[in-house]
Amino acid sequence: MGKLVVHKYGGTSMGSVERIQSVAKRVAKWYRQGYRLVVVPSAMSGETDKLLNLAKQFQHPEVHDASYKRALDMLASTGEQVSSALLAVALLKEGVPAVSYAGWQVPIRTDSLFTKARIVDIERDRIDEHLALNQVVIITGFQGVDKNGHITTLGRGGSDTSAVAIAVAIKASECLIYTDVDGVYSTDPRLEPKATLKSYLSFEEMLEMASLGSKVLHLRSVEFAMKYNMPVRVLSSFTPADLDLSKEAQSGTLITFEKDKMMEQAVVSSVACSRNEAKISVFHVPDKPGVAFTILQAIAAASIDVDMIVQNVGKGAKTDFSFTVARGDYTQAIKVIQEIAPKLGQCEIQGDDTICKVSIVGIGMRSHAGVASTMFETLSRENINILMISTSEIKTSVVIEEKYMELAVRVLHQAFGLHLGATPI
Amino acid sequence: MGKLVVHKYGGTSMGSVERIQSVAKRVAKWYRQGYRLVVVPSAMSGETDKLLNLAKQFQHPEVHDASYKRALDMLASTGEQVSSALLAVALLKEGVPAVSYAGWQVPIRTDSLFTKARIVDIERDRIDEHLALNQVVIITGFQGVDKNGHITTLGRGGSDTSAVAIAVAIKASECLIYTDVDGVYSTDPRLEPKATLKSYLSFEEMLEMASLGSKVLHLRSVEFAMKYNMPVRVLSSFTPADLDLSKEAQSGTLITFEKDKMMEQAVVSSVACSRNEAKISVFHVPDKPGVAFTILQAIAAASIDVDMIVQNVGKGAKTDFSFTVARGDYTQAIKVIQEIAPKLGQCEIQGDDTICKVSIVGIGMRSHAGVASTMFETLSRENINILMISTSEIKTSVVIEEKYMELAVRVLHQAFGLHLGATPI
Repeated sequence: MGKLVVHKYGGTSMGSVERIQSVAKRVAKWYRQGYRLVVVPSAMSGETDKLLNLAKQFQHPEVHDASYKRALDMLASTGEQVSSALLAVALLKEGVPAVSYAGWQVPIRTDSLFTKARIVDIERDRIDEHLALNQVVIITGFQGVDKNGHITTLGRGGSDTSAVAIAVAIKASECLIYTDVDGVYSTDPRLEPKATLKSYLSFEEMLEMASLGSKVLHLRSVEFAMKYNMPVRVLSSFTPADLDLSKEAQSGTLITFEKDKMMEQAVVSSVACSRNEAKISVFHVPDKPGVAFTILQAIAAASIDVDMIVQNVGKGAKTDFSFTVARGDYTQAIKVIQEIAPKLGQCEIQGDDTICKVSIVGIGMRSHAGVASTMFETLSRENINILMISTSEIKTSVVIEEKYMELAVRVLHQAFGLHLGATPI
Repeated sequence: MGKLVVHKYGGTSMGSVERIQSVAKRVAKWYRQGYRLVVVPSAMSGETDKLLNLAKQFQHPEVHDASYKRALDMLASTGEQVSSALLAVALLKEGVPAVSYAGWQVPIRTDSLFTKARIVDIERDRIDEHLALNQVVIITGFQGVDKNGHITTLGRGGSDTSAVAIAVAIKASECLIYTDVDGVYSTDPRLEPKATLKSYLSFEEMLEMASLGSKVLHLRSVEFAMKYNMPVRVLSSFTPADLDLSKEAQSGTLITFEKDKMMEQAVVSSVACSRNEAKISVFHVPDKPGVAFTILQAIAAASIDVDMIVQNVGKGAKTDFSFTVARGDYTQAIKVIQEIAPKLGQCEIQGDDTICKVSIVGIGMRSHAGVASTMFETLSRENINILMISTSEIKTSVVIEEKYMELAVRVLHQAFGLHLGATPI
């Protein structure tokens, strides 16, 4: 029996009849070389936005309860149903036996958090049946069904997670994420033309990069892959569909456990950056237990995610407290803090939504001292002021003024030698 | 507890965000006056065609097996899922509690004839639960799910059937079919400006009209309504949404059993016509048992529906055999007959796809002799040659040259007094 793999195709890869035809030819090539395949398509590019914009056009847009979100999920899930059905049509016309399923038909069971549900489990029997019949199984990404039979969606980028979760459920040998880029780069090639393609990355590095704003893979999909040790390959769907399969199967970036491939990993593997940041500082708050909790609980109650949190060492009875949120939540977060300000004494609130976050990531940092100081030194040489710092075992992030972002990315990419090419194996 | 009714809205009624908003306002009006409602929307106008055209764009369009049709149903069913979800959004934003379901969620169970499935049964528990919670229940038209969990569709116009079948399943008091016309007319008002709106029609009359080419109601929905005695009202969704409800509830055309309302039904209630006709004649076939069977079996094997069938009285050992098919099937039907011609001896095949069918319909015809002869006389006065005739208890159809269609409709409408206004009650 041939190797079992999952292919996931993003919205751009499924963006037109011609593109879907090309996906079908690619899948047919794998199929004819004996692979057993499950294919997970995203909606055709722009389709999900188009659907959700229809819903936004109705008056009184303040409704945000579960009934409303349930309707949005029913609406948005049709995008993948369309692309999956079209891919089935394309494969059948290519002469490849294929069957397409919506998430609820598999079923892919999720919790009931409409618009951002999480996969609970995946029934594999139906998939196995079709694979045993030598059919390609197409399963809609991005969606599932809750225990009451309601359609749910996994949130933006959820199709990556669907693909990895399905790969785990059916014990595939690899999950291939076909996308509109060649793989994962040492930094955004639009900011730094010297960016180099990574042949390998560890789950942990990819996890940091996904949470630091890299849009190549959905954060939750990397968590899933890491938790279940499912090798994920990010590769281009824009290579010729008849590209030699052995070349294609080795292309792009393989994300796997460090022990497998990372023996001589460079200290820093990539520079990540994100403009989607805003900073809020509360000055002169009482330096006593419960203050951070008061602030963060109010923010969480408004369903706003906080990223970096910094509390300065107190001078006397007062201290300063800063945190960052996504830029889209900035106005609301300021409002929330103003509302709870009376509880915080004579504090002063300041905000800034013209900041950005630049990070260096690499599992090599664990065993190499001085990586952070090289980062700070490099930035200071360019007179870039660091506003906040946050570190983990394998990454260091700084908040700086947005206008310096491209410069910071380029000088850090150079300082850590990332322009010298792919990670040595 | 308020009266339970089903509303069905056609594609034009759901054709834009503004139109859906107007549907929501109309449904809200009924809801606020205490009605319990199930609403069945069609896909937004043009959407089903758009989806199916996507599938047609792939190469090798000869595939027509069940796998292919299954994919088409998965594709096409999204149209109603989108409109149903949008109507839920619109109602929620109107402040009306509402929940939308796809056919498979109810479930609406069908057989497995993809692209033209038939409803087998409808589970009412889930609908009842939501009605008991005082919610408006929205259910996608046109689709269901087969016993293996595959999505099916009911064929073009299937949403009418969905609405009537749901009305029967939940024992609604009436099924209201909102559409882009005021109701059912004595004939097509585009052909005869003197056409009058019928306040009442019997199921049988509507059944004949639907099978004779009237597009107001889907044939199968009328069969269903008649079988289960479900009153169906065809009315306009283009009246102001805030129209007085008691007026709205009496508007349009009520289709019901004749005993209820038809005591003084006119002899002929309407004139129907259809251009979608083509005629094939096979001359000089042996006048012996099995010939009609040989011809019709070959046509049926090609999945072509035959409408009228005429076999002339034989002269000697030979006879002539004619039948009509939908114009789209004409070329293929001619090919089929040419292929089997050797089995029919020295026959001669002639075809004509520039014909039309004009019919008069009325349950009063049962008890009034001479209706057909009035029809033939009226046509002959205009020198319109009758090519074929077909009769049933409540209708008489003639095939004539297409160019005479409008003239025939107008003179028959006049001859049977249909310009004199609504049927007397």
